[in-house]
Amino acid sequence: MPEQLTLSIDAMGGDNAPDMVIEGIQVALKKQPDLKFLLFGDEAILAPYLEHYVLASEACEVRHTSHVITNEEKVAHALRSGRNSSMRLAINAVGLGEAHGIVSAGNTGALMAIAKFVLKTLPGINRPAIAAYFPTLRGRSVMLDLGANVECDSKNLVQFAVMGEVFARIGLDVKNPSVGILNVGVEDLKGHQSVKDAASILQTTDLPIKFHGFVEGDDIAKGTVDVIVTDGFTGNIALKTAEGTAKMFGTFLKSALTSSLLAKLGALIAKPALNKLKEHMDPRRYNGAMMLGLNGICVKSHGGTDSEGFANAINVAVGLINNSMNEAIKEDYARISFEQAENEQRVGK
Amino acid sequence: MPEQLTLSIDAMGGDNAPDMVIEGIQVALKKQPDLKFLLFGDEAILAPYLEHYVLASEACEVRHTSHVITNEEKVAHALRSGRNSSMRLAINAVGLGEAHGIVSAGNTGALMAIAKFVLKTLPGINRPAIAAYFPTLRGRSVMLDLGANVECDSKNLVQFAVMGEVFARIGLDVKNPSVGILNVGVEDLKGHQSVKDAASILQTTDLPIKFHGFVEGDDIAKGTVDVIVTDGFTGNIALKTAEGTAKMFGTFLKSALTSSLLAKLGALIAKPALNKLKEHMDPRRYNGAMMLGLNGICVKSHGGTDSEGFANAINVAVGLINNSMNEAIKEDYARISFEQAENEQRVGK
Repeated sequence: MPEQLTLSIDAMGGDNAPDMVIEGIQVALKKQPDLKFLLFGDEAILAPYLEHYVLASEACEVRHTSHVITNEEKVAHALRSGRNSSMRLAINAVGLGEAHGIVSAGNTGALMAIAKFVLKTLPGINRPAIAAYFPTLRGRSVMLDLGANVECDSKNLVQFAVMGEVFARIGLDVKNPSVGILNVGVEDLKGHQSVKDAASILQTTDLPIKFHGFVEGDDIAKGTVDVIVTDGFTGNIALKTAEGTAKMFGTFLKSALTSSLLAKLGALIAKPALNKLKEHMDPRRYNGAMMLGLNGICVKSHGGTDSEGFANAINVAVGLINNSMNEAIKEDYARISFEQAENEQRVGK
Repeated sequence: MPEQLTLSIDAMGGDNAPDMVIEGIQVALKKQPDLKFLLFGDEAILAPYLEHYVLASEACEVRHTSHVITNEEKVAHALRSGRNSSMRLAINAVGLGEAHGIVSAGNTGALMAIAKFVLKTLPGINRPAIAAYFPTLRGRSVMLDLGANVECDSKNLVQFAVMGEVFARIGLDVKNPSVGILNVGVEDLKGHQSVKDAASILQTTDLPIKFHGFVEGDDIAKGTVDVIVTDGFTGNIALKTAEGTAKMFGTFLKSALTSSLLAKLGALIAKPALNKLKEHMDPRRYNGAMMLGLNGICVKSHGGTDSEGFANAINVAVGLINNSMNEAIKEDYARISFEQAENEQRVGK
């Protein structure tokens, strides 16, 4: 746990930036008043907000830049031309050791690419992955990759399993998290070769991981395992399918409960209970996706979130820094020898 | 539309077979009294149910067999040893022209494999796909493949688009259904090579298809397009993720509305409205997945459904037969020349 925890913040990323960013800092400070922030963005634009949010203003050191990477910007262009952007400079601060981690609600692809370029990956990790929390019937789970890597081989998936397990241990505060690989069936014969090989490596290697085996799509919401490992294509589609389904259900519920006078009365009486449901499913509670596998803590906030959601993303970063997540990943990862695993796999066949 | 529509039924497939199967026939007959059924299963087991469901009994001709393919049975074993099973004989009846289509709530993998072996695929279709209806904010959509083909190339996806469009036109009664390919972003640059190539073929070929382009996971529930095309791995996971999320939401809602006396009172008052929501999301309404691309109508009912759900699966089969779905697929498909499409694609690049 560092003496003085400092986060660098991309003040200009996100739909409602910088308002929700600075208010988010204010919200986070109410819980953790000792935090310090390096705030990257346009001084003139930030000034009125900093005047308004006094607590935030006192904890922030503003680093001026007028360049912003937009959501529409192509990743290659952002990498090439974004050298003075608020996002790039905020990431640089972590690379330079000025900040312990960075939070941005900006362009996901650009954030991942720039963070990978500036911070590099942890030893042995080929590709970083995006991990986030999901609500489940049992509480919360972690899923990765959510879109950083469209194509993944078995080694990538094994690396995701190791990183996801550490993320869950620290982020969910579960002592010995269970890990499952997302597949179209729980039998060993089913699925892509990459998921079969990854399962085989996890089964035959002496890893400090409670490997559950394969899980299916409905196991995500059931909370069958603490960590769900998948490639970025499938993970991104599962994440968005779940979000879309939850929104649809919410819309139908709202429309049912306003469809008649009687329904409205019932909803009014049941309001406290319905609010609890709303709170439980509130996407802001699950805001803050982690770019796992980078040599630095990098948290992505949802672009459309508000100050409460952004404060949650800050909390995620703080928790991972305080618990030295990257050190734990390096330690666990050093225990895997892929050659050994592959040999055992071959012998086992 | 055939003069006397006959369906062959695997009476022994499904968790609650043959009870829900025969009651399902009874339910279907109340709406469509002219249907006839060939009922494949164990005569002694079927007898008491047929005695109970008189309407069904009158419309059914029982074909005795004591062999049943279980849900746990491996596909290869079912193919090899299932020659006298209720499922195989029911499919044979379609191949022999005794029935216009078959409905089974049994082992999905076995049903697809046996149906493909017995009925063969439609001209030009390499691989059949499983398609089903989804509830959306706008009504219903069709998604395929839901698990028949774990690996798909661009040609498979284009074939799915053609078949799915016809299925939606007939099944959803939409004049000119829009078709989208599931991807991790809507930009042309994103995703697997197979989805990019499939999109390119659909964009450059003169097909009678309203091709929308790429859609993302949340577009499924939004109802952005009428037909969602994807590989069987992603489709299966998206389907089950959506089911799991909807179930979780339902469980949370129920638990919220029984969490206090006040909540219970509110729920009681709003009950008619909540029942409408329940009805709208009722999976039985969406029961009946179609095995598309086979030279015969083959509908898979969910194994855990009840008689209402099984009756829906029967209705799906009847609708497709009455509207000559396979003729429409053949007609549309004949218009695609992959060579031409690929040439145009090459020129376009």
